Amino acid sequence: MSKSAVDPQRLAKELKAGDRRALAKAITLVESNRAEDWHSTDELLDAVLPLAKASQRIGITGIPGVGKSTFIETLGCRLVKAGQRVAVLAIDPSSSISGGSILGDKTRMEELARQESAFIRPSPSSGALGGVGRRSREAMLLCEAAGYDLILVETVGVGQSELSIADMVDCLVLLMLPGAGDELQGIKRGLLELADVIIMHKADGDLVNAAELGSKQLQSALNILHQQENGRHKVLSCSSLSGDGIQEAWGEVQTMLDSAESGGALAERRRRQDMHWFEHAVGELIQERLLSQNETAKEFAQLREAVRSGAMHATRAARKLAESATQRLPS
Amino acid sequence: MSKSAVDPQRLAKELKAGDRRALAKAITLVESNRAEDWHSTDELLDAVLPLAKASQRIGITGIPGVGKSTFIETLGCRLVKAGQRVAVLAIDPSSSISGGSILGDKTRMEELARQESAFIRPSPSSGALGGVGRRSREAMLLCEAAGYDLILVETVGVGQSELSIADMVDCLVLLMLPGAGDELQGIKRGLLELADVIIMHKADGDLVNAAELGSKQLQSALNILHQQENGRHKVLSCSSLSGDGIQEAWGEVQTMLDSAESGGALAERRRRQDMHWFEHAVGELIQERLLSQNETAKEFAQLREAVRSGAMHATRAARKLAESATQRLPS
Repeated sequence: MSKSAVDPQRLAKELKAGDRRALAKAITLVESNRAEDWHSTDELLDAVLPLAKASQRIGITGIPGVGKSTFIETLGCRLVKAGQRVAVLAIDPSSSISGGSILGDKTRMEELARQESAFIRPSPSSGALGGVGRRSREAMLLCEAAGYDLILVETVGVGQSELSIADMVDCLVLLMLPGAGDELQGIKRGLLELADVIIMHKADGDLVNAAELGSKQLQSALNILHQQENGRHKVLSCSSLSGDGIQEAWGEVQTMLDSAESGGALAERRRRQDMHWFEHAVGELIQERLLSQNETAKEFAQLREAVRSGAMHATRAARKLAESATQRLPS
Repeated sequence: MSKSAVDPQRLAKELKAGDRRALAKAITLVESNRAEDWHSTDELLDAVLPLAKASQRIGITGIPGVGKSTFIETLGCRLVKAGQRVAVLAIDPSSSISGGSILGDKTRMEELARQESAFIRPSPSSGALGGVGRRSREAMLLCEAAGYDLILVETVGVGQSELSIADMVDCLVLLMLPGAGDELQGIKRGLLELADVIIMHKADGDLVNAAELGSKQLQSALNILHQQENGRHKVLSCSSLSGDGIQEAWGEVQTMLDSAESGGALAERRRRQDMHWFEHAVGELIQERLLSQNETAKEFAQLREAVRSGAMHATRAARKLAESATQRLPS
């Protein structure tokens, strides 16, 4: 096994001193699929854990085009101006087993990126099996270790990423597009229920009235649905262009977090997330270690295709792969 | 490796002939965690796949006490009388790594159990990692191989089982408890959105009016929420004691299935489920093979406890376990 090019102890030290370049390098290490980096990753995480303090972890989700980046840009700049250190992680779905990024180097959040107290990082959703969030969780830990007060995790709003994100943040903000009669277009089943704060975004120009109406309608529908948890889902509207409503939206996030913290729900949520994270990560890490072998990766791709085309039953394919993967392991 | 006590070829033959005892034995084999049964399980599944035909797969979920068993008893007996062969699988959450059943030998569905054309089986949710549904999926396959027309999968309505069940059935029926102002008590976030058909149950005696009102309120709230998918969620009410509304409820399930079948949505849903099943099962099977080793199982339990108590960070614990599990594998 060749040696990793990184010195994890030094990296941990620089990172804890708040060095942004070290943080970026550390996240790259954690995201590495190369077997020679596993040990360095373990050593790095050991060196930064336990954390000095926990940051607030806020998830931002919504369909593509709803303006998540613009929202984060506007909100982030305000928070930085108020003296906060803000880290932004964008979960970036990998399209293939090799883990390519589809956000690529698209320039976003230009002003926020220029701030000294901000750190912006797209994280591939990673994982040969389409897993989402594992690396983002670890990237989140590293941001916390680097002393960021707030971590904003942005999803691309596709597939199952919304479910994962609800399981890794303290508060999930759902941005929605206003528009008469189609407020809910494209919103996946289950997502509304997972959100802690719902915001009709782009409440500017021609859409001001639609956003106002849409948020009222949605609020009353949710009120009927959630009589038990009065006020759980607050629906607000805001514009990241004009800035109207941004402060109120952030206030609502803080109100939710304060109430969750004082009532013990936040600690409970994190404990539950930790247990889930452990169980999930065990499986993913074991798979990663096994599937990183060339032969197994090739067989995985072939069997996946066989299942997709209907040539082989899913159960049969999974059993076949598990059998050969565990037999192929180097000792 | 000692040899499994079962002859999978003979079992497959008896099962395909519709022998209920063989079916029960086959499910036990599939649920076995013993390493010596893996090969027999593979052979059994190979012998029954591909299936002659697909059954209708219906999930029944709802909180404990909502009357899922009574609903299945009443519905099942009617279906059997109409000439259908009905299999019932109850997903039974295992509370520990050793996989104990909490439903135990509680006597339920007495009349249905006496019917020749019915098969009832509680299936542990299984899995050292709290996985739900993997064995139930394979049990479902075996019921299909044994020629059952309908497979009713009952959850205990706790934890994450509702999410898994939506991913393994053609139609998910959610039973709810009527009651002024608290129709939604105990319903987990996201569940409403996953259901295909929603039923206010126990619409009898004092609850007739509450059920009527509750289903109307819920229907109108859902209509506002789902303008895009008009009529997707139909809310009905019924009583399994009086039988009122049972026929309509079943009619709604069939309407949903017919429309999904003719529009291609059913085939698409199954294809998606198959892909998901494959990816999920690979991970679970690999974990199973590794965690079935005594040392690893012990370490898993210890680390899980360390995470629960806050003594070790989830990431650290998962990495530690993955490392030692993959190194401990017998070649």
